[in-house]
Amino acid sequence: MDVEAVVEQVLQRIRPTGEERAFVEGLMRDLEEIAEDSIERLGLDVKPYFVGSLAKDTYLAGDHDVDLFLAFPLDTPLEELREKGLELGKAIAERLDGYEVAYAEHPYVRAKYRGVSVDLVPCYDVKGWRDVRTAVDRSILHTKWVLENINGRNDEVRLLKRFLKGINAYGSEIYVRGFSGYLAEILVIKYGSFLDVLEKADFMLRQKIVDPENWLRKEPETALKTVKRETEEDRPLVVIDPVDPRRNVAANLGWERYGVFYFKAHQFLENPAEEFFFGKTRKKGSYLEELRRKGTHLVTIMFPKPDLVDDVLLPQLERSARGFERALSREGFRVLGWDAGHRGGKAFLMLEVDRRERERVTIKPGPEFFTERGRDFYRKNERVWVIGKRLYAEKRVKESIVDVIVELLGKNQVALGKNVRENLKSAEILLNHVPKELEEDAYLFLSREKWNLKGQM
Amino acid sequence: MDVEAVVEQVLQRIRPTGEERAFVEGLMRDLEEIAEDSIERLGLDVKPYFVGSLAKDTYLAGDHDVDLFLAFPLDTPLEELREKGLELGKAIAERLDGYEVAYAEHPYVRAKYRGVSVDLVPCYDVKGWRDVRTAVDRSILHTKWVLENINGRNDEVRLLKRFLKGINAYGSEIYVRGFSGYLAEILVIKYGSFLDVLEKADFMLRQKIVDPENWLRKEPETALKTVKRETEEDRPLVVIDPVDPRRNVAANLGWERYGVFYFKAHQFLENPAEEFFFGKTRKKGSYLEELRRKGTHLVTIMFPKPDLVDDVLLPQLERSARGFERALSREGFRVLGWDAGHRGGKAFLMLEVDRRERERVTIKPGPEFFTERGRDFYRKNERVWVIGKRLYAEKRVKESIVDVIVELLGKNQVALGKNVRENLKSAEILLNHVPKELEEDAYLFLSREKWNLKGQM
Repeated sequence: MDVEAVVEQVLQRIRPTGEERAFVEGLMRDLEEIAEDSIERLGLDVKPYFVGSLAKDTYLAGDHDVDLFLAFPLDTPLEELREKGLELGKAIAERLDGYEVAYAEHPYVRAKYRGVSVDLVPCYDVKGWRDVRTAVDRSILHTKWVLENINGRNDEVRLLKRFLKGINAYGSEIYVRGFSGYLAEILVIKYGSFLDVLEKADFMLRQKIVDPENWLRKEPETALKTVKRETEEDRPLVVIDPVDPRRNVAANLGWERYGVFYFKAHQFLENPAEEFFFGKTRKKGSYLEELRRKGTHLVTIMFPKPDLVDDVLLPQLERSARGFERALSREGFRVLGWDAGHRGGKAFLMLEVDRRERERVTIKPGPEFFTERGRDFYRKNERVWVIGKRLYAEKRVKESIVDVIVELLGKNQVALGKNVRENLKSAEILLNHVPKELEEDAYLFLSREKWNLKGQM
Repeated sequence: MDVEAVVEQVLQRIRPTGEERAFVEGLMRDLEEIAEDSIERLGLDVKPYFVGSLAKDTYLAGDHDVDLFLAFPLDTPLEELREKGLELGKAIAERLDGYEVAYAEHPYVRAKYRGVSVDLVPCYDVKGWRDVRTAVDRSILHTKWVLENINGRNDEVRLLKRFLKGINAYGSEIYVRGFSGYLAEILVIKYGSFLDVLEKADFMLRQKIVDPENWLRKEPETALKTVKRETEEDRPLVVIDPVDPRRNVAANLGWERYGVFYFKAHQFLENPAEEFFFGKTRKKGSYLEELRRKGTHLVTIMFPKPDLVDDVLLPQLERSARGFERALSREGFRVLGWDAGHRGGKAFLMLEVDRRERERVTIKPGPEFFTERGRDFYRKNERVWVIGKRLYAEKRVKESIVDVIVELLGKNQVALGKNVRENLKSAEILLNHVPKELEEDAYLFLSREKWNLKGQM
């Protein structure tokens, strides 16, 4: 199938139908009316703005989350904005189908309306980047900029977003480190089309800097500071925010996710297929077979998933996995790779290690022989010898990796994420065996199909 | 048994009897006559000097090697000294019981006479350190200094030498790095007696500098230079040669051998016993039992001992063992210890390793993904993924340590001593098994009894 045909097929699936558009427009009209009415009733000087992909008309079919921002005048004190903003959000939500209060930089209201999730977020009514006071204030400017510049290329954005989702590189959350929706929009606006962006995968990386609003000319000092800072942080891309020269839109994009995009873009251009956009049912296989093939061993550390959002839980699990990697390597086990996640109510770390048992005896380096501590070491050990200036002795150690892990945890010798520390200390430790619900994760990890650039399409 | 009684017992065994002294004196008288006669016949202006422990009367009972130095006037050209010196040596040796020519800095004659080995060594007739021209010239000065200063403490030197032999710390050869006979003599002269030297084991190390002839006062510039150089080289002791302020008599004494002396001196003073002087029959045991106890593995690399002196062979074997240690650790095997030596016509390296097989698959780090080499790596590997900026892939590897060693040798990836490189490449590689004649070495190595500071007495 040629690339145009594939793209057309995909568009059929991701472009909202007329019916869907009508539904979304009705939804937004309703919400606007309710918001304006509530503002009036409370006697507030607030403007409601729709932001996000619905407002920009870059949403994917079936994906209707609404972001309704409640913009207060710039002279509102922050405390008042928080308080009145939450009050207004609640007042609006009362007239919808239920809500809860959620917390980001400020509290906000997450409501349901006609089956759709509606976020009601207080912010300042900023006119430009110098006004920005809270993290969410830029959204209004982003929406405005995209609407002014997209120039009918909305479907191109849809294709790119869907492609990034399909290859698992979408989302700027800390545990994804992929492309945000706004970044996808900017790239399409800058390079012209979905296919242009794919073709530029290598070029962009070499250019490094993307500056659609020419901030480097208009505000050289500020923009250069951004470039310098982000280059020092070694980001793959520095995309100067069209609405704020102080910000790199791609600050959360990691090299890993860019690497996936890099190779998948190339593969797609060579062999276009719909699978790139929707993923394929992942390759299936037996993790036990993988263990036999590789001659390695799998340690799974598992505990009931704590009540934490992924934004918090996943980075903490990853930090803990790295802690185990270091601690085990000090103990003579090599960690070939690790994975972390949760599935079916269970949080897990998986460590692929080189062996399940180590030698029973290890060589313990002691102090220099001619010191007080040296004489002490000499007294305390049965077999002692000198290499260079230091004493050495044998030490009996636990053999099994499970025993070693239990001992390390007991002695607090593993650097663990602080919110999962206690859970890990009482976790189950499994060797070369996982429960049914983790079998697929174990296979994808051990085979590296989870990350294999070649495997999934 | 108290210390005096032990010392007396030992002296009975190591002090030459009257009969033995008469034999040695007769021997020296004969040799002097033959030498003087030969010198006259050849019309040379040479003086014969006895040097070494026989001349100093610090030899151990039964140990009668003679060093007869043939001293030429200082104005003799070096070439002439070599030539005439060898000629004279041969002329003397013709009248003894057979000889061969040996090679050090200069060729010299090694003869046999009445069952005793006699070295006939040409040198310059130096009167002081500024005259010294060849490495052997100082011997005459050493002998003179000891005779002038020993003051009847000859048996104390005998005790110290025998003690150092017993604990395996005697000999300044590069593969021993222990105490020379001359160093033992200086220490006794400096500290008063055998027991005084033992009691000073810790004190000496703290003082660091021993300067019996006060060179630091008499020749401060030269002596300080020696101290500075030797301190930078991190020698355990700097013993400024009483006959030459440029030289550290303890330059070849290593920390290991000093460490053994340090602990054995202490042990002896606490629990005096004859065994310290003569060694005990070493502890016996089964190396296979040790392997089972420790859960480790033994690789022995063995080849017919090449025709090299220990001075050359042993350092080269040690260098090679370190090369294997590094190379195997790069390949995922840990070397817990190594030993090298020769026995019964076989040269060997022994490596104690943590496992006999490694996992079948290893993770191969590749180049950065966005480079030409990165794209190449991507094409060539079946499973590829990105961590950070780099690509990674699986690599099938040899599992057995023996196969890995064969492969490493084939690819020249082990740093080997140059004189044993070819031998090692065609050596036998044994796993967890050694031939009969190496069983004891294997046991002493694996159990560390070979070096155990506590084990041997």
